[in-house]
Amino acid sequence: MDLKTYMEEISKKAKDASFSLRGLSADVKNTALLKIAERLESERERIKKANRIDFERGEKKGLSRAFLDRLLLNDKRIDGMINSVKEIAGFEDPVGEVVGVKRPQGFVLEKVRVPIGVIAVIFESRPNVTIDAAALCLKSGNAVVLRGGSDAIESGKVLTGVIRSGLKDAGIDSDVVQYVERTEHEGIDWLVKQDRYIDLVIPRGGERLIKRVVEEATIPVIKHYKGVCHLFVDSSADIDMALNIVENAKMQRPAVCNALETLLVHRDVAEKFLPLVRQRLKGVELRGCERTTEIIPGIKSATEDDYYAEFLDLILAVRVVDSLDEAVSHIEKYGSHHTDGIISESVASIEKFVNSVDSAVVTVNASTRLSDGGVFGLGAEIGISTDKLHARGPMGLRELTTYKWVVRGKGDLRIL
Amino acid sequence: MDLKTYMEEISKKAKDASFSLRGLSADVKNTALLKIAERLESERERIKKANRIDFERGEKKGLSRAFLDRLLLNDKRIDGMINSVKEIAGFEDPVGEVVGVKRPQGFVLEKVRVPIGVIAVIFESRPNVTIDAAALCLKSGNAVVLRGGSDAIESGKVLTGVIRSGLKDAGIDSDVVQYVERTEHEGIDWLVKQDRYIDLVIPRGGERLIKRVVEEATIPVIKHYKGVCHLFVDSSADIDMALNIVENAKMQRPAVCNALETLLVHRDVAEKFLPLVRQRLKGVELRGCERTTEIIPGIKSATEDDYYAEFLDLILAVRVVDSLDEAVSHIEKYGSHHTDGIISESVASIEKFVNSVDSAVVTVNASTRLSDGGVFGLGAEIGISTDKLHARGPMGLRELTTYKWVVRGKGDLRIL
Repeated sequence: MDLKTYMEEISKKAKDASFSLRGLSADVKNTALLKIAERLESERERIKKANRIDFERGEKKGLSRAFLDRLLLNDKRIDGMINSVKEIAGFEDPVGEVVGVKRPQGFVLEKVRVPIGVIAVIFESRPNVTIDAAALCLKSGNAVVLRGGSDAIESGKVLTGVIRSGLKDAGIDSDVVQYVERTEHEGIDWLVKQDRYIDLVIPRGGERLIKRVVEEATIPVIKHYKGVCHLFVDSSADIDMALNIVENAKMQRPAVCNALETLLVHRDVAEKFLPLVRQRLKGVELRGCERTTEIIPGIKSATEDDYYAEFLDLILAVRVVDSLDEAVSHIEKYGSHHTDGIISESVASIEKFVNSVDSAVVTVNASTRLSDGGVFGLGAEIGISTDKLHARGPMGLRELTTYKWVVRGKGDLRIL
Repeated sequence: MDLKTYMEEISKKAKDASFSLRGLSADVKNTALLKIAERLESERERIKKANRIDFERGEKKGLSRAFLDRLLLNDKRIDGMINSVKEIAGFEDPVGEVVGVKRPQGFVLEKVRVPIGVIAVIFESRPNVTIDAAALCLKSGNAVVLRGGSDAIESGKVLTGVIRSGLKDAGIDSDVVQYVERTEHEGIDWLVKQDRYIDLVIPRGGERLIKRVVEEATIPVIKHYKGVCHLFVDSSADIDMALNIVENAKMQRPAVCNALETLLVHRDVAEKFLPLVRQRLKGVELRGCERTTEIIPGIKSATEDDYYAEFLDLILAVRVVDSLDEAVSHIEKYGSHHTDGIISESVASIEKFVNSVDSAVVTVNASTRLSDGGVFGLGAEIGISTDKLHARGPMGLRELTTYKWVVRGKGDLRIL
């Protein structure tokens, strides 16, 4: 079968099956999730075996250590997937919630939360995303087409098999979860053109993947793009607080998207603050602007590319700025509109920063690491949207739904 | 200047100017709207003169009566534009509203409504859309790039000049409103690729325009596509109510998107109901399925195309169906997910229909004509979204905004 037809067929299968999810009670969906958790437990050895194949192939191919680490499924990570599915079963069902009721002109007008329909999730090497994305889509009443990284294909296939068995155990049409088994890159181009069947594409990944999806798609896209997160240390900042926050934002878990990548320091505190940063952030490679390297000699000079970079590592770009306006301009130019913050004791500076920075999450005297669906109390998150439409920042179950207007009349007509 | 550069330049101008709108108070924005209303009044003759040029060109070109009618600006319509702008000034400012506040873990988490940024509105012949779209974008704090129909170019240019003068009168950077003066069709392709500068594209128009935008765009799109609206008259329907609703939905204003286009009738009431429809809908051309033409002889047979058609005229497609399921399948296949309704006295049928029909607005015992931002109490509307993401159905001022998360801490860190 040619690639285009293959993508059409699995997308159509998902669409056809999606109708069966619409009226499903929370109980049935939760039962299915618990069945999936059971199957993950009973199929543990088969999952590890399939993952071993991916892992060894990856090693032979010379994939990086970091990549191989993301690819690996061990018992601890399988436990994590099981817990995640159980946790999703415990969250409130977002579907059917009446968001608003009005009586604008006699008739009853309801705004009701409903599933989006079919969601395509395109992701990279982490096999656990297969489980998380399927579970979140199921809970929110959506069918899903999963397109995982080609290096995780064996793991992805087995995990999808496990999910589909769990769905069957609960009496749900297993076609509501589709996994793209054809890993050619051009397949993505066809997948994101299935606008008759797919309602939303969520690409999670780097610049190349996102760009490709955005250029090819005829379906709405919510990008989960990189996090080039900034902190601006204002002239009025509490220096101790600033040190704690910068350390936490950079070092607590450097490989994730809400970790700090660039530190902007007001010139009035730079001479005092930067040497303390150098002391506190042990093991972090600093790459500074000219003024930074004057204050803390011996560190690397930052290149233009460093300011655009999502290091996901113990590397921090540093720049001294003359003003809050310069900090805002830097963030506008180099940032990814993910999470950016200010550390300041000045109400005027704080409000100016909050109003001027056009990012999904703006932090004030807090770590960028707090930008997270779990921390925000949204429940499980499918990721962090760097787009502005539909969902911005952490995307939980509610953000995987849309709404429908229901007009309930008694023969109501339009007069004017 | 080549077309690509032209589109880049006006988009960049809009983006640069958009920052100045962010912190603007409701008062300043409302003053600007009232100044625009004043300018529309004082420039009335110049507007009519420019419109006369478009109109005469259109006549020579042989444009249809209906098209020319939509193009025409007379005193009454200019009054309408003035009133519309004044009305928008009177609506509540959506920007800055705190949609939610939580304290998930000690810090304060706010979800705040903010402008989207820059919106491109692509529309067809009605010149008043120039004013409405600019006024709604201004009120919601967005810069706008307007791309009107090429046959309304003179009217569009003069109206934009009027808007920009009004903005200047109020001390606002007039670059927040841009009008595309280059009317080549390929310009649209370049416009919808300005993802560095434009945040959202709203195309309002027919199939060809929408398809082109969706295929070319790298920016999120909210389609305002056609309204192929259905009413299903169930076997339990109150026949008098059904007649009143069908008449109102088809005849009260046939040229608009929420007017009825296809009537589906349950076979058990078809013999009784259809002859009454024939009597009541005087002047309406019926196009029926085989069973319909047996019951009311002498009417035209409906073609496959008729079921897909948005007639916008006194024409109604009619089909007899065996069941509610068949009605739902028909709507799924031929409809545009705009507004579809049921007329029924059976609670079970009503709930099944409401849950199964995947349209922006579902009506129960009410006219499809009620599907309207004004009727729903949303204030002025920029149109009716037939998409599922971000905004569905009538789109008012709030739907022209997004939100931002603000984390306000006192040195809060992430521990786990």
